[in-house]
Amino acid sequence: MEPAASTIYALSFLAVAVAFAFAVYLHLWVKRQPTDNPTIRRVSDLIKAGANTFMRKEYKILAAFAGVAAVLIFLFLPQGIWEGDWHENVGMTLAYIAGTVLSAIAGKIGILVATSSNGRAAEAARKGIQPAFMVGFRGGAVMGLAVVGFSLLGVAAVLLLAGDSSIVLGFSFGASSLALFAKADGGIFTKTADVSADLTGKVELGIPEDDPRNPAVIADNVGDNVGDVAGMGADLFDSNVAAMAAALVLAQTIDGDTGGVSTMTVFCYAALGLLSSILGIATARIGKHGNPTRALNSSTYVTTAIFVVLTALATALFEGFRWEIWAASAVGLLVGVIIGITTDYFTDDTKPIVKRVAHASHSGSAFTILSGVSYGFVSALPAMIGIAVSALFAYQICAPLGSSYALFGIAMAAVGMLSIVGMIISNDAYGPIVDNSRGLAEMGGLGEDTIRICDELDSAGNTVKAVTKGFSIGAAGLTVISLLGAFMAEVNEVLAERGEELLTGFDIMNPTVFFGVLIGAAIPAVFSAMLMLGVDKNAQRMVAEIHRQFREIAGLREGKEGVQPEYDKCIDIATAGALRELIPAGLFAILATVVVGLIGGVRAIGGFLLGNIVSGLLLALFMSNAGGLWDNSKKYVEAGNEGGKGSEAHKAAVVGDTVGDPFKDTAGPSINTQITVVSLVASLLAPLFVALSIF
Amino acid sequence: MEPAASTIYALSFLAVAVAFAFAVYLHLWVKRQPTDNPTIRRVSDLIKAGANTFMRKEYKILAAFAGVAAVLIFLFLPQGIWEGDWHENVGMTLAYIAGTVLSAIAGKIGILVATSSNGRAAEAARKGIQPAFMVGFRGGAVMGLAVVGFSLLGVAAVLLLAGDSSIVLGFSFGASSLALFAKADGGIFTKTADVSADLTGKVELGIPEDDPRNPAVIADNVGDNVGDVAGMGADLFDSNVAAMAAALVLAQTIDGDTGGVSTMTVFCYAALGLLSSILGIATARIGKHGNPTRALNSSTYVTTAIFVVLTALATALFEGFRWEIWAASAVGLLVGVIIGITTDYFTDDTKPIVKRVAHASHSGSAFTILSGVSYGFVSALPAMIGIAVSALFAYQICAPLGSSYALFGIAMAAVGMLSIVGMIISNDAYGPIVDNSRGLAEMGGLGEDTIRICDELDSAGNTVKAVTKGFSIGAAGLTVISLLGAFMAEVNEVLAERGEELLTGFDIMNPTVFFGVLIGAAIPAVFSAMLMLGVDKNAQRMVAEIHRQFREIAGLREGKEGVQPEYDKCIDIATAGALRELIPAGLFAILATVVVGLIGGVRAIGGFLLGNIVSGLLLALFMSNAGGLWDNSKKYVEAGNEGGKGSEAHKAAVVGDTVGDPFKDTAGPSINTQITVVSLVASLLAPLFVALSIF
Repeated sequence: MEPAASTIYALSFLAVAVAFAFAVYLHLWVKRQPTDNPTIRRVSDLIKAGANTFMRKEYKILAAFAGVAAVLIFLFLPQGIWEGDWHENVGMTLAYIAGTVLSAIAGKIGILVATSSNGRAAEAARKGIQPAFMVGFRGGAVMGLAVVGFSLLGVAAVLLLAGDSSIVLGFSFGASSLALFAKADGGIFTKTADVSADLTGKVELGIPEDDPRNPAVIADNVGDNVGDVAGMGADLFDSNVAAMAAALVLAQTIDGDTGGVSTMTVFCYAALGLLSSILGIATARIGKHGNPTRALNSSTYVTTAIFVVLTALATALFEGFRWEIWAASAVGLLVGVIIGITTDYFTDDTKPIVKRVAHASHSGSAFTILSGVSYGFVSALPAMIGIAVSALFAYQICAPLGSSYALFGIAMAAVGMLSIVGMIISNDAYGPIVDNSRGLAEMGGLGEDTIRICDELDSAGNTVKAVTKGFSIGAAGLTVISLLGAFMAEVNEVLAERGEELLTGFDIMNPTVFFGVLIGAAIPAVFSAMLMLGVDKNAQRMVAEIHRQFREIAGLREGKEGVQPEYDKCIDIATAGALRELIPAGLFAILATVVVGLIGGVRAIGGFLLGNIVSGLLLALFMSNAGGLWDNSKKYVEAGNEGGKGSEAHKAAVVGDTVGDPFKDTAGPSINTQITVVSLVASLLAPLFVALSIF
Repeated sequence: MEPAASTIYALSFLAVAVAFAFAVYLHLWVKRQPTDNPTIRRVSDLIKAGANTFMRKEYKILAAFAGVAAVLIFLFLPQGIWEGDWHENVGMTLAYIAGTVLSAIAGKIGILVATSSNGRAAEAARKGIQPAFMVGFRGGAVMGLAVVGFSLLGVAAVLLLAGDSSIVLGFSFGASSLALFAKADGGIFTKTADVSADLTGKVELGIPEDDPRNPAVIADNVGDNVGDVAGMGADLFDSNVAAMAAALVLAQTIDGDTGGVSTMTVFCYAALGLLSSILGIATARIGKHGNPTRALNSSTYVTTAIFVVLTALATALFEGFRWEIWAASAVGLLVGVIIGITTDYFTDDTKPIVKRVAHASHSGSAFTILSGVSYGFVSALPAMIGIAVSALFAYQICAPLGSSYALFGIAMAAVGMLSIVGMIISNDAYGPIVDNSRGLAEMGGLGEDTIRICDELDSAGNTVKAVTKGFSIGAAGLTVISLLGAFMAEVNEVLAERGEELLTGFDIMNPTVFFGVLIGAAIPAVFSAMLMLGVDKNAQRMVAEIHRQFREIAGLREGKEGVQPEYDKCIDIATAGALRELIPAGLFAILATVVVGLIGGVRAIGGFLLGNIVSGLLLALFMSNAGGLWDNSKKYVEAGNEGGKGSEAHKAAVVGDTVGDPFKDTAGPSINTQITVVSLVASLLAPLFVALSIF
C-alpha cells in the first residue's frame, strides 16, 4: 500500500491523542488515591509550592532568554531578514518559540503529577508494595506520555505548516534552549540543596536526612522533582525532537520535498514508538510481593518488542518503506538497551564493581575516589563501542541504497533508540516520586514497615535510573551524529544557493578541521567544570542562609512546637543562584561555537562538533557512571557491608557519594544537552559561517 | 650557501659530540663534590642499588618483549619477509633494537648521575643554596644531554645507514616501547612505594615520612628516580625521536629522497636545538641567595631565544631553507612555552587556583576533589587552544609552498617545540634529585637550616615540573598530529605500490572513520584506569609485606639499634607488581589498534588515531594538572594556611594529594606515551591494514 502523507500524519496525531487521553486517565487515577495524613499533605504541598516557585522563576528568565534568541532568529535566520524571504524568518521564530513552550508545558505537567503522586505513593505503601508501585509508576507515566506526545505533536505540526524541515531545526533549538535551562539549572538547584542540607544537617547538627527543622529539607525534596523529573523530561524531549529533526532534514535530501516516503517513515516510526510505549505502560504490572526493578525493566522489554514488531508490519505494509531502514532502527534500539544493561553492570550493588569500590573505601576516601574514577573511565568503553557499532552498522546496511540513505540510516538508528522514550521517561520519573515518598513516609510517621517498602521502591528507582541515563546518553550520541549530517546538509544548501562548491565531508587532515576538533573537545570539560563549581558556590550561599536561620529563629534548633524554618528563603537562594551559575556556562558553550565558526568557518565547525560529541560522550558516560557507582557503593556499605554505617569505610564512601552527586546529577547529564545545543547552533548559523569566516 | 647533506650531518654529529663531552665534564664535576656523611652515603648507596635492581628487572622483561617485537618486525615489516626485499626487514628490526637500546642507555646514565648527585646536593646545602642548586641542576643536565644526544645520534645514524625515513619509524617505535615501560612501569612503581610508605608509616604508625624503620622508605626514594628521572627521560626521548621521525617521513614526500633540503632542515634544527640547550645549561647560574625557580625558568628562556636566533641565521645562510618553516618551528616553541606558563598558573601555590582549592578543603575532602577536578578540566582549555592554534598557524603559513609543505610545517612546529628538550629534561631531572636530597638531609641529621634550603630547592623542582609536564604534553600533541600525517604518507606508499587509489584524507562523515574516532577516544581513559587500578593492587601487596616485616622482625618497630628492615623485599615487590600491572594495559592499547585496523582498515585507524590523540591530550592535561594542583594545595596548607598542618582542611588536602599522585605521576604522563605507541603501531602496520581489513 502506498503511504499517503495524510495517512501517516493522521496516524501521528492519533497516537498523540491516545497518549494525551491515557495521560489524563492516569492523572485522574492518581488523584483518586487517598491522601489522609495531614503532615504528609502539608509537606507535599510545601514541595509542590517550592517546585512551582522554582519553575516560575526559571521560566521567567528563560522567557527573557528565549525572547532575545527569538529576536535574533527573526533578524538573521535562516538568512538576514533584509536578504530574502522574511516569511521564512517568521516561521523559524515561531517554531523556536513553539519548541520552548511545548517543552515547558510538558515539564510543568510532569512536576504537577509528580508532586501529587509522592504523598499518595507513601500512603499507598501502608497497604503494600503493589499499590505503592502503581501510584509511583503511573505518576511517572503521565510525564512520559506528555513529553513524547508534545514532541511528536510539535514536530508534525511545524513540518505540516512550514513545509520545510529546516524550520523543524528551529523547533528543536527551542526545545534545546529549554533543556539547557531545565537540566543544568535543575541540576545545580538539586545538588545545591542536597549538599547544603547534608552539610548543615547530617554533618554539623547530627540530625536525620529529612528532619523538618532543617531549612533546606524542602528545597532538597523540591530538587528531586525539578532536577530529575522536569530536567530529565526536558532532556529527553530535546533528544527526541533533535533525532526527529535530523532525520527529517536528511529525509528531505532523499525525497526532495517533505511529503515523501522517507519523511513519512520518520513519522510512522515515531508514532509507532509512542503507541508501543502506551501499550508498555498500560500492561505494566507487579505481583503482590513482586520485585519493582524487574517490573520496570520488563515493561521496557515489552515496549521494545512491540516497537520492533509494529515497525516490521509497517515496513511490510507500506510501499517504499525499506527493510534496511527498519534494520537500522532496530539495531539502534537494541544497542540502546545493551548500553543500559552495561551501565547497570557498573552501577548495580549486586554486581562486583560496586562491591570493589566499597572494599577500596577501607583504605580511605582517596581510594574510593581513585577506584571510582578508574571504573568510571572503563565504563565508558562499552557504550562508546555500542554507539560506534550501531552507527557503522546503520550506515553500511543503508549505504547500498545511496549515500543520502546511509546518513539517513544513522538518523533512523537514533529515532529507533529513542522510540521507546515514553517508557524510559516513565521509569525515570518514577524514581524521584518514590524518593520523595520515602521522605514523606518518615516525616508523616507511617512506621517502619511502610518506610521499608518505600526504601525498596526507591532502590529500584536508583537502579533503573542508571539504565535510563546510559540510554539517554547513547541516544544523544547517535542523535548528534545525525545532527552532524544535518549540519552538512544545511551548509550545502547554502553553498548551492551561492553557487559555490559543495562540501563532501570534513577531512581530519585539514588543519582547520583539526583546529575545531581540539577546541570542541575541550568544551564539555570546561562546561561541566563551570556547573560543578557553580554548585559549590551556590551551596556556600545556602549554607550561610541556613546558619543565619538557626541563629536568628528562636527555638528552631531545639525543635520547639510550632516553630518553623523559612523554607522559602532556601528555595529562593537555590533558585537565584542556580540561574546565576548556569548562564555563564551556557553562554560559554554557545559563544565558543560562534567564535570557532567565525574564525575557521564551516570546516572548523565540522571538526568542532566532532570533538565536542566525542569528548562530551566520554565525559558524560564517565561522570554519570562514576556518580552512580559511588552512590550505590555508599548504599551497599550502609546495608551493613564492609563495616556498615558509621565505620571508616562508610565515611570514605560518603565522600565518594558527595563527589558523585554533582557528577551524576549536574554535570554528566547536562553535557548531553550542551552537545545538542551546540550542534543546533552550528546548523542554524551555518549561513553566517559560510558568509563571514576568516579562513 | 647550498646545504650539502654532509655539512648538516657533520653539524649534527658535532652537536652530539659536544653534548657528550659536556655531559662527561658535568658528571666528573658532580663526582668531585664532597660526600662525607656516612649515613647519607649509606642511604644513597641503598637508593642507587634499589634503582639498579629495578632497572635490571625492567630491562630484562623489556628485552623479552622487545625480542618478540623484533621477531614480529623482522617477519612482517615493512612487508611480509616472503614478499619483498628482506634487507628492509633487517634494517627495520635493527633500527627498532637500536631505538630501545639507546633510550635504555640514556635512562641508565640518568639514574647513575641522579643517584650520585642526591647525597652531594644534600651536603652542599650545608654551605648554602647556591652550591646545592648547582649540584642538583648539573646532575639533571647530564640526563638532559644524554637523552637529546642519543636521540639525535640514533636518528641521524639510522637515516644515514638505511637511506629511508620509514626505517626511522622503526627506531622511533623502539624508543616508544621503552618509554611505555619506563614511564608507566616507573609510574606504577613510584606511586606504589609512595602510597604504601604513607599508609603504613605516616597513617598507621605516626612516624615521619623518611623514617628509616619503614621498610618502604628506600623504595619510595628509588621511585622518585625511576619514575621521574628515567621515566620522564624515556618519555621525552620518545617524543623527540617521534617528532623527528614524523618530520623526516613528511620531508621525504617533499624531497623525494632523504638527502634533500627538507630532511636537512630537520637535522639542522635538531642540532641547533641541542647546541642551544648546551649553551643554556652552561650559562645557568643562581645568586648566593637567589630564587631557584627563577634560575631554572630563565635558563629555559635563554635557550629558547638562542634557538630562535640560531635557526634564523641558518635559514638566512642555507639556500632552500624556508622562512615559513622557521616561523612554524618558532611558533611551536613559543606555544610550548605558553602552555608551560598557563600550566604554572593552575598549579603554582602563589597563584589563585591553588589557594581556592585549599580553601574548598575547609568543607571536607569531597570539595577538595570536586574543585580540583573542575579546575583540572578548565586547565586543559588553554593548552588545547595552544596546540590547535600552532598547528593551524604552521599549516597555513606553509600551505602556499604546497600541500606536502603544510603537513611538514606542523611536524616542524613539533620539532621546534621539542628543540629545547635538553633544557627541559635538565630542569625536570633536577626535581627528583633535590627531592631525594631533602630526605637524605633529614636522615643524615644535617640540621634545620640545611633541610630548609633543601625544601626551597624541592619546591622549585615541583613548580618547574608542572611547566615541563605541560610542555611535554603539548609537544606530544603536535608530534602525534604529524604522526597522523606520517601514517597517511605510509598508507599512500603502500596504496601506490598496489596501484590503488590514494587516500586524500579521513572524512569524519565516513562512518568507518567515525567508528574509529569513538573507540580511539575511549582508549586513553581505559588505559589510564588500568594503570591507576594497578597502583592500587600493587600497593595492597606492598602494604602486606610491610606489615609482615613489622610483625616478624624483632625490634624493628621500636627502632632498636642495628635492626634494619628488609628494604630489598619491598623494592622487589614493587618492581614485580608494577610490571605485572603494566603489561595488560600496554597490550590493551596495542591490541585495540590492531583490532580496529583489521575491522575498519586504514580509514578506521585514521579516525582511531584522531580520537586517541584528542581524548588522550584532554585526559593527560586534566590528570597532570589536577594532580599538581592538589599536591601544591596540600603544601600550601602545610605552610600554615587555611588552618595549617593537622587541621581538618589539611586532612582533606591530603586526600586530594593522594588521589592526585597516580593522576599526575602514573596515569597522566603515561597517556603521552600511549598515544605515541599507538600512532607508531598504526604507521608500521599500515600495509597489514590495507591488505587484510574487513571493511
